[in-house]
Amino acid sequence: MDGKSSNNTAGKPIRCRAAIARKPREPLVIEEVIVAPPKHREVRIKIICTTLCYSDVTFWKLEHPPAIFPRILGHEAMGIVESVGEGVHEVVEGDTVIPIFLADCGECTDCLSQKSNLCSKFPFKVSPWMDREETSRFTDMNGKTLYHFLSVSSFSEYTVVDIAHITKIDPATPPNRACLLSCGVSTGVGAAWKTAKVEAGSTVAIFGLGAIGLAVAEGARLCGAKRIIGVDVNQDKFEIGKKFGVTDFVNSRNIGDKTVSQVIIEMTGGGADYCFECVGLTSLVHEAYASSRKGWGKTVVLGVDQPGAMLSFSSFEVLHSGKTLMGSLFGGVKPKSDIPILIKRYMDKELQLDEFVTHEVKFNDINKAFELLLQGKSLRCVIWMNNE
Amino acid sequence: MDGKSSNNTAGKPIRCRAAIARKPREPLVIEEVIVAPPKHREVRIKIICTTLCYSDVTFWKLEHPPAIFPRILGHEAMGIVESVGEGVHEVVEGDTVIPIFLADCGECTDCLSQKSNLCSKFPFKVSPWMDREETSRFTDMNGKTLYHFLSVSSFSEYTVVDIAHITKIDPATPPNRACLLSCGVSTGVGAAWKTAKVEAGSTVAIFGLGAIGLAVAEGARLCGAKRIIGVDVNQDKFEIGKKFGVTDFVNSRNIGDKTVSQVIIEMTGGGADYCFECVGLTSLVHEAYASSRKGWGKTVVLGVDQPGAMLSFSSFEVLHSGKTLMGSLFGGVKPKSDIPILIKRYMDKELQLDEFVTHEVKFNDINKAFELLLQGKSLRCVIWMNNE
Repeated sequence: MDGKSSNNTAGKPIRCRAAIARKPREPLVIEEVIVAPPKHREVRIKIICTTLCYSDVTFWKLEHPPAIFPRILGHEAMGIVESVGEGVHEVVEGDTVIPIFLADCGECTDCLSQKSNLCSKFPFKVSPWMDREETSRFTDMNGKTLYHFLSVSSFSEYTVVDIAHITKIDPATPPNRACLLSCGVSTGVGAAWKTAKVEAGSTVAIFGLGAIGLAVAEGARLCGAKRIIGVDVNQDKFEIGKKFGVTDFVNSRNIGDKTVSQVIIEMTGGGADYCFECVGLTSLVHEAYASSRKGWGKTVVLGVDQPGAMLSFSSFEVLHSGKTLMGSLFGGVKPKSDIPILIKRYMDKELQLDEFVTHEVKFNDINKAFELLLQGKSLRCVIWMNNE
Repeated sequence: MDGKSSNNTAGKPIRCRAAIARKPREPLVIEEVIVAPPKHREVRIKIICTTLCYSDVTFWKLEHPPAIFPRILGHEAMGIVESVGEGVHEVVEGDTVIPIFLADCGECTDCLSQKSNLCSKFPFKVSPWMDREETSRFTDMNGKTLYHFLSVSSFSEYTVVDIAHITKIDPATPPNRACLLSCGVSTGVGAAWKTAKVEAGSTVAIFGLGAIGLAVAEGARLCGAKRIIGVDVNQDKFEIGKKFGVTDFVNSRNIGDKTVSQVIIEMTGGGADYCFECVGLTSLVHEAYASSRKGWGKTVVLGVDQPGAMLSFSSFEVLHSGKTLMGSLFGGVKPKSDIPILIKRYMDKELQLDEFVTHEVKFNDINKAFELLLQGKSLRCVIWMNNE
């Protein structure tokens, strides 16, 4: 036993249960796995809650590289530090943490800058390995390697995460709320707050009212937006959207011969101050850009389209419209400094998180979370690792 | 004679000399013309100095619509108010003014906003007429209509301009400097100052060191940029550029197999904070975007490409790079409020204008100004209307 540690597992492999994606589109299989101890600058976490984000589903469906199997998916989570590897001074055993797919090394130009959240020491990539060395900490009971996902792999009772991907949070935060800030909700709230910097009194249009789009609405509401227009093909989304500040709704299947941008330009007398594309369709990015106010409109791209998808804009329009096009990974949120701010705003009852949780299941029922998301029934389904 | 006016010409047509573009690509012809008195909200100006901007040349060369002949070109100028039409309270006879192609009505949402310089009452268009009614104030000696250009038509001893296109300036400003702020130099300086909001200590890359690109350098220098990289095919531009703060030079014909963006990323350790495309080539906009720093790089499009030219960006790159693409007409400069600031900075010896004037000619030699610009010999050639 490690003399510095009070637990019995530090420094040793842990045998626990994980939900393994063995083949594309097949239900995850809960098996026993071996989780190696954390190496230099790594942290082993006992996952308390995890949630399913659409990126998990995308990589679960994908048949070709960068997909790889068998893999432990999951990247939205909350947990408790079980033990730390050498050289970790930022957290200790027992700390409450959120693992985050985007690194924040705290040392590089980007991490030291207030203007960027794109760590240049550990740039974002969809790797099957740990960040500092291309190895896995997971093996199955046959001794075969299980691959990591997005530096998190939270569909396991224990996981190993690089310290660059760990944010320490207030331990009073309810686990089934804290985990939401690990990816999707922070992305949406951050897109309004950090990327677009929505001004009070402004008008916002959100294309796609899934969890990300609703989180953009929540972020815009917190920033004091006066009018928040939701655009979706599903009329039911308006009722859900109202909980997050959506004031107007455009059902894009119900506008006759008009385009969405024509409708929004009419509604707003010239266009929205900020437009957010949250679906991942280039055609919708173009519509969002067209819906934004000439002179100052900002369009933020949040949706992930197919690889190779191209955005095309008339050079004349870009020059003459005075509009801005921006991209944003994780909503411009800096994991280690901004997530604690969002946690505090939740604890202060300013940021709404509760409404994002439409379902909660036990770890044994993790495939139910996939079904609910695929059927469009859930915003976020929290998966509790403790089955009791 | 108008009782409210002290001159003999107010309210009457003025017979004076103008340089008329009668056919595409043919030398301008100086002829006598009749300039009608200003109507409601219009001002008649005695032009003191005008300069030749590349947009004049573009429309002089163009054989098909929106080109139209015979036309009085010219839109960079400085003059004295000769008389005002009904309802003009902003300027009086004798005021020193700059006519500006971009309107600033002072009443619409855009003009009242600090965020936009794109007047929505009189949106930018290349019209052959006055703004408020589709008529001309010019006729030739045969009684035929001569068309306006960009709401200014300064290649005439007198011209009529809508009050929305007039900025009153400090009469102490030297005429051959004031006229520079009427279009090109303000566009470049403004792109750095108003559109990109260049931060002190930052790194800037400028694609194309013509007058606009050099004005961007001057604007970036005023904003405190630490490093200003000029990109051009002409090595001589580096020496000129140094006068405006250019610190580094990339000769794009002299970089072997590398792309300009590779060179700039190497030079800057990741990319420039701000990139400005000042040539009007979509390929160069893509190179500028690629040269900008991931995480926070801003690319500003200033160059005017062929109609129909499209800018294409990978959806993945826009989303994952955290970069911003912006367009800017007249550099985001608000004519009535920002031009006086630039004039003051010139008078205070902060803004450099002198170096932009490479040649000065008399009105009779206006075609010489075209030759110099077409041969790439001039930055700005000031044309003095008074031939004495």
